[in-house]
Amino acid sequence: MKEKILLSHGSGGRLSHQLIKELFLKKFDNSLLEKLGDSAIFEEKNIRWAFSTDSYVIKPLFFPGGDIGKLAVSGTINDLAVAGATPLFLSCALIIEEGLELSILEKIISSMKETATRANVQIITGDTKVVEHGSADGLFINTSGVGIVTTQENLSPQRIEVNDRIIINGTIGDHSIATLSKREEFDFQTEIKSDCAPLNDLIDKIIPACPGLKMMRDPTRGGLATVLNEVASEQSFAIELWEKKIPIRQEVASICEILGFDPLYLANEGKVIFIVKYQEVDKLLTIARAHPLGKESHIIGKVLSEPKGKVYLRTEFGSRRIIDVLTGDQLPRIC
Amino acid sequence: MKEKILLSHGSGGRLSHQLIKELFLKKFDNSLLEKLGDSAIFEEKNIRWAFSTDSYVIKPLFFPGGDIGKLAVSGTINDLAVAGATPLFLSCALIIEEGLELSILEKIISSMKETATRANVQIITGDTKVVEHGSADGLFINTSGVGIVTTQENLSPQRIEVNDRIIINGTIGDHSIATLSKREEFDFQTEIKSDCAPLNDLIDKIIPACPGLKMMRDPTRGGLATVLNEVASEQSFAIELWEKKIPIRQEVASICEILGFDPLYLANEGKVIFIVKYQEVDKLLTIARAHPLGKESHIIGKVLSEPKGKVYLRTEFGSRRIIDVLTGDQLPRIC
Repeated sequence: MKEKILLSHGSGGRLSHQLIKELFLKKFDNSLLEKLGDSAIFEEKNIRWAFSTDSYVIKPLFFPGGDIGKLAVSGTINDLAVAGATPLFLSCALIIEEGLELSILEKIISSMKETATRANVQIITGDTKVVEHGSADGLFINTSGVGIVTTQENLSPQRIEVNDRIIINGTIGDHSIATLSKREEFDFQTEIKSDCAPLNDLIDKIIPACPGLKMMRDPTRGGLATVLNEVASEQSFAIELWEKKIPIRQEVASICEILGFDPLYLANEGKVIFIVKYQEVDKLLTIARAHPLGKESHIIGKVLSEPKGKVYLRTEFGSRRIIDVLTGDQLPRIC
Repeated sequence: MKEKILLSHGSGGRLSHQLIKELFLKKFDNSLLEKLGDSAIFEEKNIRWAFSTDSYVIKPLFFPGGDIGKLAVSGTINDLAVAGATPLFLSCALIIEEGLELSILEKIISSMKETATRANVQIITGDTKVVEHGSADGLFINTSGVGIVTTQENLSPQRIEVNDRIIINGTIGDHSIATLSKREEFDFQTEIKSDCAPLNDLIDKIIPACPGLKMMRDPTRGGLATVLNEVASEQSFAIELWEKKIPIRQEVASICEILGFDPLYLANEGKVIFIVKYQEVDKLLTIARAHPLGKESHIIGKVLSEPKGKVYLRTEFGSRRIIDVLTGDQLPRIC
């Protein structure tokens, strides 16, 4: 392990995984953390609870399609929802840099409230710390959340079987490209908006209709490629993605080509990957496409038996390449 | 309201209260947040849960008697425990400045684990973000926590009656003075150690024995004076503190005199204030003094009927002065 913390330790990719395995899992050492889901699931008095936390350090604070407040509420709601939970309550802890304009804070708090209301969750506890000018970058927000798990079984990779299908609810890469377009160091214009949104309503409609839903993940940091690698890793199946089926806006694809990004690794903030039994694909797609956040849902791949533990891409030309987890740090401060 | 965020907005004092009332309560607008307890209490399937969050930005990361990790675990445990809850699970979200030495992070994570184990809670979910050098100050930690409320009724100021007694489990000001002694801008030597500790075990022993326990608070930011003002504010009673009964180490008192601090406003991280029915004082003191974290427990005041909503100090000379909430910011980055 490197001796100093690098930006890549926060990228969600290889160094993040190493830090989690070699430090956090080793030290904190408990079976609930070990599962490394988007939420931890614990049972208390016969109810299964999901508990999740995320800190948001996105730069800039406002981006096309959202702001750090909308992101902080959506992100934690989504981590609960993809664990099969109905999100109920959130906390909101702010670390503010001295000198932040109050009107900016007000806008962001309004945005948090609006997003929470839309998702039917309440923000019920909070904390505010202020640090000296230069000791933080504007504003960092932590949201943690709790929800009740409504699926019959806990969703997990162990339930995945050969021939299950991989579905995504829309285009990839929008959040990263929208955020980047507002950074000083990048000089491009785009109409692309972040997909940042709470997905619990969409997911709530899918769960009761699809008992063959095996697992869900939200492909945030590290993107579709990294998240699917986390799903397949150390399991006895492979995931095959079909390049020409993965929804991506033409503009996002073009910008990626110019800037040298692989969209499979770009963060999304309003996307969910469903892994579902083959027989329930049509039902899932019908429900998802009827929802405002699932109109562009597509089957993007399937589960195979080999090569075990791997994710690969069937390219448009029919060739096959292994898709690994993110190495290095494609885009820091994207969430 | 001032137009920019000042350090005082994070002090726990007057500007913090203003920000909470005029922004957070107004926007987030719900009855659970409105209670503004150390934890929010919600009921679900006939179980009352406590949910709490705190971000820790203390400077320096290591101080006599503890470090940011021990503090982050103790602090959130204490916020749950003073709400009458048995803390069960914590989250841990890190914001790390690029370049932090890995060995420092390891020490802090070990300290979190040790503190959690001692308090019988598990850290079951987490998040790691890394920001560029200069965009944060070393390390910030958010811990959120959930626990089950075990008291028959929710502890609250509404239950407080005239003649109830105020008890504290030991000396005030140790945490602030210990932390300050390690800051470059202060040049003094001291043997004082932070009182930073998880109080749930002590509190768990008191709760079943003392049904006349009306309320607890941990006097962290803003100190004893501010926290008791929060208790009395808008209530139909007054709190009288007895100056000569408030436990304080001679060395802390001397340093306060030299530096011009009022110890009533200094943050504590291992202290709890009990407000208890007069008839149960002896029982509470006996249990508390038998516990390693309560040896120096003392009655420090009582509840009177007038002046309603106020806290005042009966000084050593018998005079009386009103103690208000903290104005300005005595010591930033103390927790």
